[in-house]
Amino acid sequence: MKKFVFVLFTFLFSLNLLAQETPVKIVFDVTSDDVKVHQKAVRHVKMMSEAYPDSDFEIVVYSGALDMVLNDKSSVAEDLKMLAGDEHVTVAVCSGTMARENADESALLPGVKVVPDGILEIAQKQSQGWSYIKEQ
Amino acid sequence: MKKFVFVLFTFLFSLNLLAQETPVKIVFDVTSDDVKVHQKAVRHVKMMSEAYPDSDFEIVVYSGALDMVLNDKSSVAEDLKMLAGDEHVTVAVCSGTMARENADESALLPGVKVVPDGILEIAQKQSQGWSYIKEQ
Amino acid sequence: MKKFVFVLFTFLFSLNLLAQETPVKIVFDVTSDDVKVHQKAVRHVKMMSEAYPDSDFEIVVYSGALDMVLNDKSSVAEDLKMLAGDEHVTVAVCSGTMARENADESALLPGVKVVPDGILEIAQKQSQGWSYIKEQ
Repeated sequence: MKKFVFVLFTFLFSLNLLAQETPVKIVFDVTSDDVKVHQKAVRHVKMMSEAYPDSDFEIVVYSGALDMVLNDKSSVAEDLKMLAGDEHVTVAVCSGTMARENADESALLPGVKVVPDGILEIAQKQSQGWSYIKEQ
Repeated sequence: MKKFVFVLFTFLFSLNLLAQETPVKIVFDVTSDDVKVHQKAVRHVKMMSEAYPDSDFEIVVYSGALDMVLNDKSSVAEDLKMLAGDEHVTVAVCSGTMARENADESALLPGVKVVPDGILEIAQKQSQGWSYIKEQ
Repeated sequence: MKKFVFVLFTFLFSLNLLAQETPVKIVFDVTSDDVKVHQKAVRHVKMMSEAYPDSDFEIVVYSGALDMVLNDKSSVAEDLKMLAGDEHVTVAVCSGTMARENADESALLPGVKVVPDGILEIAQKQSQGWSYIKEQ
């Protein structure tokens, strides 16, 4: 238990220290239809944007993950709306995926940004020096 | 419906616009034995190479995904043969995976390129500025 | 059979040749709770660190993959201990994941390094020019 408390403090202390480090830029690739993956992606970005408020994060939703950003289907609606309101966080969805799934913009959670192509968006971010995380 | 048509046109229009943008280079990492993942990877590269004809794409197949490039097992044989014929698209398979699975070169779909090591190939591409997408 | 032997020799010969090439740096992202993924990640790093002894490899374990680095739960304990002893290989685990799972440092396999945040660790490596592989 003592050791666990030590690890916990190390963790909290490190987050605090790291918050003062060089900002990072991370693009998260979400394609899974599994709501657990949606929840994990949101938890990751939420925790990181709190710990590193000067860093930039973008969640790119495409392929099987469309439900994640739909008003009436998302299991992470509240968190995503909150994240989309953070100037350092972008929640983007692929217009190609929307077209294939017959979803229109009115079906999207507020704050979600439509990008022409999810994979191109991710590739361009990487070209601009962003790091990449595949959510699974 | 009107909004959907709008999204669709935005999508088509954007693809057209983007086709005139800076070319990208993307390496796709495919390790899954799930044929749906093979189909998704092929669809992605097919759509992107049509929309961005000056961009470069490479699909690297290794680990559990070997069947994807085998003559008598691939569920995407026709599309892969077509893609492998595009000078801006490379379909590569890991020789280590082939050796482990007792597959020889004659079993490969025409146009598939054998690389010594799938992960090394992907790592080298990234070092050369290529973006990375994990297909899932 | 002859062709298979040819592929095998090509593979072995290439590994040997490549061992003399420019070293690479690769960070492996492991989040799955599937022991097959743990075994695959370890096999990849083991093979590559043998073939490319001057290259650097880091396995970052977080989210669902914690068991991989726990003394009494890992299915790859022996291999991981050996890898962690290689000066060109780092096995890292996220302290946030440990805290969430109530795991303390004494539960970790010897040689495993605790990092404050798994995703931040991976992002920073990528910023420093490391290539990224998502294990699945």
